[in-house]
Amino acid sequence: MTKYTGKGVYGAVAMGKISVFKKQDTAIKRIHTEDSEGEKKRVAKAKQAATEQLQSIYDKALREVGETNAQIFEIHMMMLEDDDYNESIENIIDSQKVNAEYAVAVTADNFAEMFASMDDPYMQARAADVKDISNRIIANLTGNVSDGSAGDDKMIVCADDLAPSETISLDKDKVLAFVTAHGSSNSHTAILARNMNIPAVIGVGSKFLSEIKDGDFAIVDGFTGEIFVDPDEKTTAELTAKQKADEEKKRLLQTLKGKENVTKDGKKINIYANIGSVDNIGAVLLNDAGGIGLFRSEFLYLENSDFPTEEQQFHAYKRVLESMAGKKVIIRTLDIGADKQVDYFGLKKEENPALGYRAIRICLARPEIFKTQLRALFRASVYGNLGIMFPMITSVSEVEKALAMCGEVKAELKEQGITVSDSVELGIMIETPAAAIISDKLAKLVDFFSVGTNDLTQYTLACDRQNPDIEQFCDTHHEAILRLIEMSAENAHKNGAWIGICGELAADTTLTETFLRMGIDELSVSPTFVLKVRDAVRNIDLSK
Amino acid sequence: MTKYTGKGVYGAVAMGKISVFKKQDTAIKRIHTEDSEGEKKRVAKAKQAATEQLQSIYDKALREVGETNAQIFEIHMMMLEDDDYNESIENIIDSQKVNAEYAVAVTADNFAEMFASMDDPYMQARAADVKDISNRIIANLTGNVSDGSAGDDKMIVCADDLAPSETISLDKDKVLAFVTAHGSSNSHTAILARNMNIPAVIGVGSKFLSEIKDGDFAIVDGFTGEIFVDPDEKTTAELTAKQKADEEKKRLLQTLKGKENVTKDGKKINIYANIGSVDNIGAVLLNDAGGIGLFRSEFLYLENSDFPTEEQQFHAYKRVLESMAGKKVIIRTLDIGADKQVDYFGLKKEENPALGYRAIRICLARPEIFKTQLRALFRASVYGNLGIMFPMITSVSEVEKALAMCGEVKAELKEQGITVSDSVELGIMIETPAAAIISDKLAKLVDFFSVGTNDLTQYTLACDRQNPDIEQFCDTHHEAILRLIEMSAENAHKNGAWIGICGELAADTTLTETFLRMGIDELSVSPTFVLKVRDAVRNIDLSK
Repeated sequence: MTKYTGKGVYGAVAMGKISVFKKQDTAIKRIHTEDSEGEKKRVAKAKQAATEQLQSIYDKALREVGETNAQIFEIHMMMLEDDDYNESIENIIDSQKVNAEYAVAVTADNFAEMFASMDDPYMQARAADVKDISNRIIANLTGNVSDGSAGDDKMIVCADDLAPSETISLDKDKVLAFVTAHGSSNSHTAILARNMNIPAVIGVGSKFLSEIKDGDFAIVDGFTGEIFVDPDEKTTAELTAKQKADEEKKRLLQTLKGKENVTKDGKKINIYANIGSVDNIGAVLLNDAGGIGLFRSEFLYLENSDFPTEEQQFHAYKRVLESMAGKKVIIRTLDIGADKQVDYFGLKKEENPALGYRAIRICLARPEIFKTQLRALFRASVYGNLGIMFPMITSVSEVEKALAMCGEVKAELKEQGITVSDSVELGIMIETPAAAIISDKLAKLVDFFSVGTNDLTQYTLACDRQNPDIEQFCDTHHEAILRLIEMSAENAHKNGAWIGICGELAADTTLTETFLRMGIDELSVSPTFVLKVRDAVRNIDLSK
Repeated sequence: MTKYTGKGVYGAVAMGKISVFKKQDTAIKRIHTEDSEGEKKRVAKAKQAATEQLQSIYDKALREVGETNAQIFEIHMMMLEDDDYNESIENIIDSQKVNAEYAVAVTADNFAEMFASMDDPYMQARAADVKDISNRIIANLTGNVSDGSAGDDKMIVCADDLAPSETISLDKDKVLAFVTAHGSSNSHTAILARNMNIPAVIGVGSKFLSEIKDGDFAIVDGFTGEIFVDPDEKTTAELTAKQKADEEKKRLLQTLKGKENVTKDGKKINIYANIGSVDNIGAVLLNDAGGIGLFRSEFLYLENSDFPTEEQQFHAYKRVLESMAGKKVIIRTLDIGADKQVDYFGLKKEENPALGYRAIRICLARPEIFKTQLRALFRASVYGNLGIMFPMITSVSEVEKALAMCGEVKAELKEQGITVSDSVELGIMIETPAAAIISDKLAKLVDFFSVGTNDLTQYTLACDRQNPDIEQFCDTHHEAILRLIEMSAENAHKNGAWIGICGELAADTTLTETFLRMGIDELSVSPTFVLKVRDAVRNIDLSK
């Protein structure tokens, strides 16, 4: 038995035979040819085929993992049409009198290197994408296109790294688990694996790949990130038990659908869901969430190439409210900036974007953007049970300004004869230390608080959570965070407001009892965690 | 009368005649010449002359504004010897068969553009420096070197922008004030002006320069950033009064030397000074500070091209302790990272450096660096009254680790027969919200707290203070900050520790009474603010 360890990105146990994923042969030969026009025609044909393949991959992704995750393949199709990219290929064919494969490969290397050298992590990640599409063109040029089928048995797919298009091309029904030598937990592949509910371990290291071969029996533990190749009896027995327990637990959770979120001693709490796109409403309903505690409105801005119109926004909000059929839907106003950048906002590059011009700061400085969103929200308010909340609040005056803007917009709509609901709750995110510390004053102004634990942790501990080098200093259970949440809860209740938590900590069941004892009224979590948290709540006895 | 407004960078009033600073004529002609060797010799000679001039400017700066501020001219001398820079000049002379002036000017433009396009603000600032040295070479080539003399009268020097070498070359005794059309308040020129105690206004705009001429009478108000050209009687009278009052105030402050920091009702407080280099000790003594409340040890690392040795550090600390002759000297351990970068640390570029790998985080992760500094500190401890404090603390375990390291180092030194003082106080910076919130627990571990209000504000409000676009959201008097300071003060005193403030807020005399009422034991400010804060303290009556 050999044990390898990486990072688990989806928790489940899988056992079966290994299939080593074969990359296209990337040894491209440089061949001299005078027929430049012929080579350029070959490129055009290969690109045409690549586009068709990407369209069908996109369609598959749309069905299996939703629009947001499928988008990457739309980007790939756009990259195929990029002028600079295509001119580079043609120039190399023309000037060097070489074959198409070579010209594409050189262009891919140059562009990937250019992207990789950029300072922006988003652009750096594009290096993998440009290689992915280039390899696809080359595969089409050489007639070496993989159909993604992996034989008849379900396999543990092992690879150096998997490009997004490779991950999605694999027949989901034939994949037991993914294991990659490289990759990060924020890579598209990791995200896709999580969304496909397939156990996955990344970053196992190159040694692993050199030591395994097709057909080796292995067990993948997506919880611990461990892989056991040729496992001994004891390990097999242990992990079989773990797998069974996990499956049983997941099955049992399903039986909690329709049940109340109530502790043994009768204390009730709301369990809502966080979503980032209209696509996720299915998951909210499927997992029996009592409402939507955080609907991130950024997707409307991220998906568009210009500011979304009032009409576009209105229809999206209306659809969510109608789909939730009277259940609470809390929509957070625009939280752009920091790690969420949109070109057409024309935001400057900042030294510390997390401490910069973002969210409510942009909305208050650019009221035309904010007002358009508020108009769309209030117009949609009559189609369901709407709450609106403002992100990145630090002061009383910001809240007062945002509320004044709401008042203006409502008056304007009424004057235009448009009906607006009278029961829209207005709240704020508690995600800066300042907001928690002056929560006594803020609670007097709003109907509710929602604690964003991710940002609150980041600012309280002065720790960028996306920076792997300081992970050890980023204690998400730090007493300061818990004290700030408790302080906010007390201040909310003293002043007639309710309080929820919508950050990652809300799904941390080791803290559920702590939150209940603080008097937290609502926990809003990823749809897939709703039943897990309900289970935790139902096992708590606060009278003890 | 015409009024112009810019940004005041040193508060004082000056009135007198304008002298428009004449830049070298920068219209460089491109002249064809076959004598490349001759041109290269001309460059070498001009460079030699430039180096000698820079050496004498450096010596002047060293006397007038101290080593840290003079350093820029050392950098200029090094730039003159840069291989890439010199090769570029020679290549242009050789390949294009052109005159030396033209080759230097083109090289200057190319390098300046390269620096300006870099993502790092430090490197961007180098663009001005490369132009500065290139203009000096060209001036030497054309025999057009300014001697910086500006006639007999004291003048208000007005310029488009002033290069650091131009600022320092000016005869200080003949300059009433600086006014520049461009420039930022963090530019070298602004910093030099402040250190030379000369009223200065920057960023007045280009229109100003086009409308004034030599000999115009003007009043510069460095407090408000206003310039009045050809002022009317009323303005002249008002500003004359303001100037007198300011001078009287500065004179009166001098009479406070030797007096106690005591309120009318007899409450005493310590007023210490913040310094960043051994050079500043003179200013500390001159302004009658009771001790050094914050000695930033970074200068030892920033000035070196490799890690400073234990010996180097020991001598620097010993010198400070001896110079302060038994008065308290609190040295903060290394606070590198964030906006203070040192190449040889090999730190990665971070998305949010202020929330990243910095200060105590580096020290705990790289104990060899930390231990060297602690050894030097404890060895120096017998030469005075030393306190050591740790920056960027967020948790109990960090403090425990740092204290354990101190224990180890002391034991090691004693074993080696080296005497260590028994009365070294150990403290921490309170500059993260986490530290303030758990200050009850932290106070049990240390002798003192020192509140770093700059970082504390930045994290509490999630606001990068160096980002001008969010200045309006960065309320340095925000109630959350004051509550955190008060909470820390209460917790310190309950647990037998004392508490000081060493951030910018300590010098804000509108808050002095608030701080005294909180029970703050010490305020540590820039040396030039010591007497101003003493004056404020002596005018407070806490019994009212």
